[in-house]
Amino acid sequence: MPVRVLVPEASRPDEQLTLSVDESAHVARVLRLGPGAAVRVFNGRGAEWTATIVTSARAAVTVALHDAIAPARETRVRYSVAIAVLKGDGTDDAIRDAVMMGAARICPFVPARAEIPVAVALRGERLERWRRVAVSSAKQCGRAVVPEITPAVSFAALTAAPASGAGPRLLLVEPSLSLAALALADVAAPLAVTLAIGPEGGWTTEEVSVAEREGWLLVSLGGRTLRATSAPLAALAACQAVWRDD
Amino acid sequence: MPVRVLVPEASRPDEQLTLSVDESAHVARVLRLGPGAAVRVFNGRGAEWTATIVTSARAAVTVALHDAIAPARETRVRYSVAIAVLKGDGTDDAIRDAVMMGAARICPFVPARAEIPVAVALRGERLERWRRVAVSSAKQCGRAVVPEITPAVSFAALTAAPASGAGPRLLLVEPSLSLAALALADVAAPLAVTLAIGPEGGWTTEEVSVAEREGWLLVSLGGRTLRATSAPLAALAACQAVWRDD
Repeated sequence: MPVRVLVPEASRPDEQLTLSVDESAHVARVLRLGPGAAVRVFNGRGAEWTATIVTSARAAVTVALHDAIAPARETRVRYSVAIAVLKGDGTDDAIRDAVMMGAARICPFVPARAEIPVAVALRGERLERWRRVAVSSAKQCGRAVVPEITPAVSFAALTAAPASGAGPRLLLVEPSLSLAALALADVAAPLAVTLAIGPEGGWTTEEVSVAEREGWLLVSLGGRTLRATSAPLAALAACQAVWRDD
Repeated sequence: MPVRVLVPEASRPDEQLTLSVDESAHVARVLRLGPGAAVRVFNGRGAEWTATIVTSARAAVTVALHDAIAPARETRVRYSVAIAVLKGDGTDDAIRDAVMMGAARICPFVPARAEIPVAVALRGERLERWRRVAVSSAKQCGRAVVPEITPAVSFAALTAAPASGAGPRLLLVEPSLSLAALALADVAAPLAVTLAIGPEGGWTTEEVSVAEREGWLLVSLGGRTLRATSAPLAALAACQAVWRDD
């Protein structure tokens, strides 16, 4: 795959743009690309162009856009993925995979069985880091869309948010936790869906009750106990296979 | 989860057994469990017991088995998962995930776009390492079955192996590679299935032709390009959701 550069303000062919300081440093210092090098420019909102580097300095690289090209296909269903904030690099891995699998929106939240202090989960640096992970994953997997990462919220705020036409809200549970859980194959293909994925150790009984009361559906992905970092990937792969969202 | 110890020769309650040198070292030195400590013993073939440590020395720990307990539920479909040998720890990650998702048998193979030399892929130490990874993953995810890991073979040997009642053989392809690919939702739930998952960079056109000629079905998991280490997890999650294999 050619080098792909994110330029949020890119909007039409034949314009000339200056990359952000971070992107400039990456292109000029890490990749060592100079004037004349061919790259691709995408704007994070679904458009992509062939482009050429015009000037290359550490602090400011400029590119000339050429032709618009067909971006990687996006999913038909709009997936919002709520991911429990995990310890270590767990949240990074979960976000990387969710971007690769086509998530439109990623909403980190702090569960009752939090692995890190709430104050740490809510820090602005964490959000900035997750956004960088999302950009990096979009570049690698070829998507021209960078999903929105919302600031971390509490589980109560997550579950109480109004559905507002955003489709069914599914709480992924282990089958041992609730006999009432549906199989994913029982949920008709929606236009949009919100999936909430719990922490290592799973949901508390209280969390499950709260979500049910707020109108969430309990859905099981099968009898296997997944590592929390693997669950977003497994959930999105399962939804896309069941709903033929190819 | 209590500490789980693999004792392949365990077969009935109330017997007393000595752990292997590796398991003994792990229990006595790493976990520092002494006489009287409660553990679980599983035999890797689907049976599990409560047990107590009787004597604990670095080289030989003995355990007394008590009651048989219900093992974690296995999948209904028998999954054989053929995984391209990947560079670095990639194969380890893929095997860990395939075990967690219930694979019955894991068959590493060397693809045309091999990331490491064939001679390295076929080394006995690699196979031993993969078997340790499978044991470790089974312990962590609670399965009482340790899947068989077969020695690595060439792609030609993999695809030519007779199906012999082992159900359909599915080659997972990116949709760009073949217009003929089925969606997984078009494949009826089988009793057993073989899934072959390619390397980073995908199959060569020649590999796809060979597999088709040998009677494999081309199946697509959707438009997303997955990292090779993520593909076994995504494929098994998709199969289980579509086939209601919970």
